[in-house]
Amino acid sequence: MTSTPGEHPRVVSTSFRVRYAETDAMGIVHHAAYMVWFEAGRSELMFQTGSSYAQLEAQGYHLLVVEAEARFLAPARYGDMVSVHTWVGELGSRRITFSYKVVKEGGEVLATGRTEHICIDRAGNVRTIPHWVKDIFGQGFNDS
Amino acid sequence: MTSTPGEHPRVVSTSFRVRYAETDAMGIVHHAAYMVWFEAGRSELMFQTGSSYAQLEAQGYHLLVVEAEARFLAPARYGDMVSVHTWVGELGSRRITFSYKVVKEGGEVLATGRTEHICIDRAGNVRTIPHWVKDIFGQGFNDS
Amino acid sequence: MTSTPGEHPRVVSTSFRVRYAETDAMGIVHHAAYMVWFEAGRSELMFQTGSSYAQLEAQGYHLLVVEAEARFLAPARYGDMVSVHTWVGELGSRRITFSYKVVKEGGEVLATGRTEHICIDRAGNVRTIPHWVKDIFGQGFNDS
Amino acid sequence: MTSTPGEHPRVVSTSFRVRYAETDAMGIVHHAAYMVWFEAGRSELMFQTGSSYAQLEAQGYHLLVVEAEARFLAPARYGDMVSVHTWVGELGSRRITFSYKVVKEGGEVLATGRTEHICIDRAGNVRTIPHWVKDIFGQGFNDS
Repeated sequence: MTSTPGEHPRVVSTSFRVRYAETDAMGIVHHAAYMVWFEAGRSELMFQTGSSYAQLEAQGYHLLVVEAEARFLAPARYGDMVSVHTWVGELGSRRITFSYKVVKEGGEVLATGRTEHICIDRAGNVRTIPHWVKDIFGQGFNDS
Repeated sequence: MTSTPGEHPRVVSTSFRVRYAETDAMGIVHHAAYMVWFEAGRSELMFQTGSSYAQLEAQGYHLLVVEAEARFLAPARYGDMVSVHTWVGELGSRRITFSYKVVKEGGEVLATGRTEHICIDRAGNVRTIPHWVKDIFGQGFNDS
Repeated sequence: MTSTPGEHPRVVSTSFRVRYAETDAMGIVHHAAYMVWFEAGRSELMFQTGSSYAQLEAQGYHLLVVEAEARFLAPARYGDMVSVHTWVGELGSRRITFSYKVVKEGGEVLATGRTEHICIDRAGNVRTIPHWVKDIFGQGFNDS
Repeated sequence: MTSTPGEHPRVVSTSFRVRYAETDAMGIVHHAAYMVWFEAGRSELMFQTGSSYAQLEAQGYHLLVVEAEARFLAPARYGDMVSVHTWVGELGSRRITFSYKVVKEGGEVLATGRTEHICIDRAGNVRTIPHWVKDIFGQGFNDS
């Protein structure tokens, strides 16, 4: 699990306050919430591609999660201000991975993670990732 | 908010254990979870109508929640066995309400609630509730 | 359910993007998510009281939800930018109510709601709301 | 990620219906829900140790999640009956791993997963896993 971006990826960040509903009886954020936060990070990256990703979805394509992993390093608590840093890890013809780092205000790393996705069409069939999608993530987000 | 079924409604029940993820930092179940539990109760009632509700959905109809309310009487905790009792409250031509009572093993009432629904079609337009749907809920669930 | 603030309450707002995890199979935000959003609004109001509310919690007091209600007027969708406007409704010696309005970018009202709370101490006993708490919410948030 | 139990582990199962709130706008269960399901499986395993795990918690110990991973093989949908099979993977002096397999009625494997835990005390300090805990999971669940 890569916890630091590679040489030249574009890292996108989004910040928010920890919600009370995200905590559990241990008094800390429940680990499942990080999957939602990773997704929020991925969404932010998508939004920043502008119309391109909307175009992907309009054509009925989806980036389905096929694998997810997370490492929890320190607890987040209610009211904490956290940031999710997201970048494209690998970009193949059928698979794309995103990597994440969740950081607390002040700089403490709370968690790292990685999700792997395939591209499916409206009928649920696996599709080659359209090259213009690879262009978006590859050029827009990975080139120096 | 009616917390007891009326004269002759059919009351359907479903039981499950409280999940750790449903608790919050106060050590008790977060109140938003009860909306999910009410829905689980409503689903159970739907499943028990057999093919009828599936038929409703297959035709593109949905019972959209337009109002929800809950009263929290006692806390639920991780591992508690709880039951949701659900029944049809009112059944109009455009609105249907469901009522709920959440009970802990042993009989303590944890919460009561009510949700109000309208029927919408695939395009999102409000529709009269099909009379065969009213038949299901009215006859199948309310008659003596 | 009051959906507009009274004469002179202080209205606090918080904004965020709809998360994909908050949607359901109807393609819209699941209604339980609004309870979490209301709480985010309430939290924002608390945070803006500064150290006062932290002081309340440090002393072992909690504002427990005893009643919640919501009216859903229009659906929110993934990626929508929404704002929760929150204000103190009633403020008694043992009960405090908060009111909410969820608005979509552009001004459309998506939902309104109200939650009622009691003050409990660490042992779970109901307590009179400390007068300095009433001062915070009453003066800091309700006076003209 | 081991997706099948080893030689002689005791596999514990728990079954439930997919909740509507667990679906997302793709019409399938959101991937974060599987973390909650894994935990439900782990809980079931704990409950079946009887008083032993309660004793662990009563003494202020917690099995904190430090790593989690999941592989998603097929989608679950609203109303599906699913089972989570859980077993102890590795059992060290400071780490314990649980493995999971989520299966749909009929036998289709929907997901596999693994979580890794450390034992912390009330103060949040990492502790050696008490040998009587190892006895529970090792003997009660792993021996032939």
